[in-house]
Amino acid sequence: MQGVILENINTPEELRKLPVSDLPELARELRHYIVDTLATHPGHLASSLGTVELAIALHYVFATPDDKVVWDVGHQAYAHKILTGRRQQFPTIRTYTGISGFPRMDESPYDAFGTGHSSTSISAALGMATASKLQGNTTRQHIAVIGDGSMTGGEAFEALNNAGVSKANILVILNDNGISIDKAVGGLSRYLVKITSSPKYNRLKERVWRTTGGDDKPLKARNFISKSLSALKSSLLSRSNLFESLGFRYFGPIDGHDVEQLVEVLSSLRKLNGPKLLHIVTKKGKGMKEAEQNPVTYHAPGKYDAETGLQLHTDNSHQPLKYQDVFGHTIIELAEQNDRIVGITPAMPTGCSLNLMMQQMPSRAFDVGIAEQHAVTFAAGLAAQGMTPFCNIYSSFMQRAYDQVIHDVALQKLNVVMCLDRAGLVGDDGPTHHGAFDLAYFRPIPNLTVCAPMDEHELRDMMYTAQLDNQGPFVIRYPRGLSVHPDWRNAMVAMPIGKGRCITEGENVAVLTIGHIGNEAARAVDALRSEGKNAGHYDMRFLKPLDTALLDDIAARYRAIVTVEDGTIEGGFGSAVLEYLQDCRNSDTSMPMPPVVRLGIPDHFVTHGPVPQLQKDCRFDAESIKSAIIKLWNE
Amino acid sequence: MQGVILENINTPEELRKLPVSDLPELARELRHYIVDTLATHPGHLASSLGTVELAIALHYVFATPDDKVVWDVGHQAYAHKILTGRRQQFPTIRTYTGISGFPRMDESPYDAFGTGHSSTSISAALGMATASKLQGNTTRQHIAVIGDGSMTGGEAFEALNNAGVSKANILVILNDNGISIDKAVGGLSRYLVKITSSPKYNRLKERVWRTTGGDDKPLKARNFISKSLSALKSSLLSRSNLFESLGFRYFGPIDGHDVEQLVEVLSSLRKLNGPKLLHIVTKKGKGMKEAEQNPVTYHAPGKYDAETGLQLHTDNSHQPLKYQDVFGHTIIELAEQNDRIVGITPAMPTGCSLNLMMQQMPSRAFDVGIAEQHAVTFAAGLAAQGMTPFCNIYSSFMQRAYDQVIHDVALQKLNVVMCLDRAGLVGDDGPTHHGAFDLAYFRPIPNLTVCAPMDEHELRDMMYTAQLDNQGPFVIRYPRGLSVHPDWRNAMVAMPIGKGRCITEGENVAVLTIGHIGNEAARAVDALRSEGKNAGHYDMRFLKPLDTALLDDIAARYRAIVTVEDGTIEGGFGSAVLEYLQDCRNSDTSMPMPPVVRLGIPDHFVTHGPVPQLQKDCRFDAESIKSAIIKLWNE
Repeated sequence: MQGVILENINTPEELRKLPVSDLPELARELRHYIVDTLATHPGHLASSLGTVELAIALHYVFATPDDKVVWDVGHQAYAHKILTGRRQQFPTIRTYTGISGFPRMDESPYDAFGTGHSSTSISAALGMATASKLQGNTTRQHIAVIGDGSMTGGEAFEALNNAGVSKANILVILNDNGISIDKAVGGLSRYLVKITSSPKYNRLKERVWRTTGGDDKPLKARNFISKSLSALKSSLLSRSNLFESLGFRYFGPIDGHDVEQLVEVLSSLRKLNGPKLLHIVTKKGKGMKEAEQNPVTYHAPGKYDAETGLQLHTDNSHQPLKYQDVFGHTIIELAEQNDRIVGITPAMPTGCSLNLMMQQMPSRAFDVGIAEQHAVTFAAGLAAQGMTPFCNIYSSFMQRAYDQVIHDVALQKLNVVMCLDRAGLVGDDGPTHHGAFDLAYFRPIPNLTVCAPMDEHELRDMMYTAQLDNQGPFVIRYPRGLSVHPDWRNAMVAMPIGKGRCITEGENVAVLTIGHIGNEAARAVDALRSEGKNAGHYDMRFLKPLDTALLDDIAARYRAIVTVEDGTIEGGFGSAVLEYLQDCRNSDTSMPMPPVVRLGIPDHFVTHGPVPQLQKDCRFDAESIKSAIIKLWNE
Repeated sequence: MQGVILENINTPEELRKLPVSDLPELARELRHYIVDTLATHPGHLASSLGTVELAIALHYVFATPDDKVVWDVGHQAYAHKILTGRRQQFPTIRTYTGISGFPRMDESPYDAFGTGHSSTSISAALGMATASKLQGNTTRQHIAVIGDGSMTGGEAFEALNNAGVSKANILVILNDNGISIDKAVGGLSRYLVKITSSPKYNRLKERVWRTTGGDDKPLKARNFISKSLSALKSSLLSRSNLFESLGFRYFGPIDGHDVEQLVEVLSSLRKLNGPKLLHIVTKKGKGMKEAEQNPVTYHAPGKYDAETGLQLHTDNSHQPLKYQDVFGHTIIELAEQNDRIVGITPAMPTGCSLNLMMQQMPSRAFDVGIAEQHAVTFAAGLAAQGMTPFCNIYSSFMQRAYDQVIHDVALQKLNVVMCLDRAGLVGDDGPTHHGAFDLAYFRPIPNLTVCAPMDEHELRDMMYTAQLDNQGPFVIRYPRGLSVHPDWRNAMVAMPIGKGRCITEGENVAVLTIGHIGNEAARAVDALRSEGKNAGHYDMRFLKPLDTALLDDIAARYRAIVTVEDGTIEGGFGSAVLEYLQDCRNSDTSMPMPPVVRLGIPDHFVTHGPVPQLQKDCRFDAESIKSAIIKLWNE
């Protein structure tokens, strides 16, 4: 159901031919199409509903794709995708071979810059604006659309600080909905609420308007802007605003769902050179009652009834718990026993299930905002004072705090437990979100203990072990999705650091795995067993320190080794095994050195799609593991 | 020359017994001692001279070490070190086995948190404050001392945003000297200048003071603060300040060299709960004319005459140029030919010699502030619009932009050239600054070309090659210090991507090196040659893509391989060679697989000291390389 106006809009050029008065109806149709499609093709619903009018107004006013629009954390860009030639493909969103859930430069010329992680848009737009200036193009516009949540990310501030003095043609649109995925937190968020609600501010604004000739009638946008400008020049407001402090001209706040006003304001701003910020207020989930009321739940709600908006719950009572929920319950269980434990998440409480602890122990669980760097150093500060923080960050977002792990945690040997959720291939979110690199990027860091559980009982034992006295920096990585057993709640025991375990004794070929992917290997080994090939299987548990005694034993007893990891082949777990065996051989030339075949994520970025499909493409699903064993078996 | 007061101060307890009136004299003595000592024991002079009074006042007022002081980018902490039991050891600063140039938790209980990279102090202090609160300690104070330059780093903003709503007992002291290492840049810096210099602001302040009873006499600090507070409550100023916007109580600006006023103000602030910020204005290099006038030069001036302050220049006209200067000259040479080239540095123009281009081509060279994340995404934005940015970031600081390299540059295959200065062991600055990890952390990233020059001619050829059409993301890493040849200016030629070269043909054992460390290996190979052992030597140039054809050839012709890199052994260049040879053997079991002995930085953090000493400790100096070859030779 695309609606009579929408079904004729194939490009922004066609959009621009509509009279402004048609745009509200187009917004309704677009919103309807999104709600209708995502009901059966799950995606990021609530944030995309919030930017329908903005996407229309931007493409209506600006000469995209020559003018550049960068959508911060691209999951707010669905309306943009539909309006820019991808209306028919929209139902394929986030499916294997379908269009991406995020803007991608290689998908459309209208996707000016790829975004998946937050807070990059202002930097990218400033880079483009600087390029245009150097190329002698003084009219091209460069627009960053950024949510109030993403604005708390340090990179956004770095970019504002740089852009504010740049004279670049950049327009930052602050899409203020008071929520990122979870509720926005921190001083900035509170400040924005003050701006939009404080009677003092409104009185002041009113006074400014009155002195510059404003009256009670709705102000025309052009007037609004020129008046704001002259008022700013002559009043205390010139330094009263955080963004003005940094050198931006600030406009707003205005209603982000009034598409006609948006068109007017943007048309005026288009003619204004230099760095400027437009503050719009929107409602996440706008136009769908359930999503407006529960924007956290409806951030990415899965399937729902398009008529009623109610989520379609499948009965998963007999399924294992998700790893994230095992984490969420277990940290509470541990914190009840150990009062040094606190929990930290950078803006992902529901994603990593720390929300459970935030509800139950509010003084001991912290959502620090979209701020991975701060999250890790904050944890280090807590640990320096004797606490044991569990800092939960998605694997691909931990890339943001790499320096802090090295400089603040590892170098100082602080007792910080870093739990990396979404490690390995994550599926539908694709290359920006795959946790592909953590094993390889953490392996060279001294003082770290790095481990990965094969099932949720190991996860619990690892968490239990990590919080014991003076364990030093401890990394536990586990995947998105379901754990293994029907009953997750084992009695936790301490796990010997750097010790693996034998899953299956065998001969000839040994399969060495780390983490949940071990279950895939176990299937391969079981299948081979029925064919009379008794390969061995070892769950190594620890990347660092490696279980060298076990490796010595394996090297002595097997003719060849296959390593399997849900991470990059280059420099990862298999590489560590290979390095160790080579070093042994170098110390003692009589040592056996069985060949090591390494399976894992190959040296290219992996697309989006169902995890089993992607594992198959990467050749570390059970079938591929089986083939690798057979090949070695027959050599 | 320690002075009569200073020589009796061994601990802050002793400092606190002095009458306040002695503190100005102590400051003079302390300053003198620093100038005197650093004249012959080089270190970070200018910033430490700027914080003499602050260090005295902090230890005088606060109950350190129970109260916590975190010095951002710790090179401003020399006075602090002298006052906290390290007066006698001070001349050993930054020497092998001597005290560190930065605060280190393992060096003194007064060093509450280790700092070397910027912008971490507020996060760490907030972590400590949160710990104290949870531990029931409501009186402990937690202080972050941070420069205006460091304040532009995104992590500082993330921390302010989080702290502003935290109610934690945290005092941020903004040490505003308008300069970090180079002149501070950006909107924040301009804003601070406005605060401290705007006649409007001063009129306003005056008016506020007058209405609250201020007069012309110097205000007592307690009055100043209580009056500021009540004034803030009742005036527009309550939201007029950037820091107040984020939830901090803002005080200042006050003179950071008036030690008695500092003591008064800090004593009052000590009694105030919640997050607060004191803005002090200091002069970098204070008290030494040359350093005040040239704070950039005197940031770390090397040796100088303690009497006159004049730098002692050694005649280095016959020495090779520094690598950084070769970069600085070469980017200009290339930019003159290729108008797509721009240069970017995050606050290190003199450190990486981009200052040359900033002088010569000001519109095409950008200092973006202490903002590594932004620097890389800004570069990606430029590249997305057809420019070819050279983004120069020290290797250890590039850890800050790891996610941006993956997410914004590599995934989108953008033509960004990342030049990593200070790669490998850097010497006196020690573990926070060693560029130990870049080879290992960049190796798993798809789409990157990663190379390292053995001399400055290769550096120039690599820079030339990187800016050719559509080379994609390109990483060039090179060390701190001198290059190799007397004449650096070769005629640049394109270098075949992923191709190494033979330095010396040989037999039996081949040494494979990457980058400048190859010169150390060449010495080892030469020495062995005189002993009749003709080992081969190959400068591989590229970590990624590896020269697999050359490796095939080497594997066929030599019995054993030694790899040498100025980077971590785990997961680095040697690991890549080993992986490749193993993969060849796996494809074709008849392939030879010579053993690979990997030399490089071992799996622990390396201390500070002279580079040759550290290379020896790490066992990859010429002598160690020679030993490794001999051991294999005799097997």
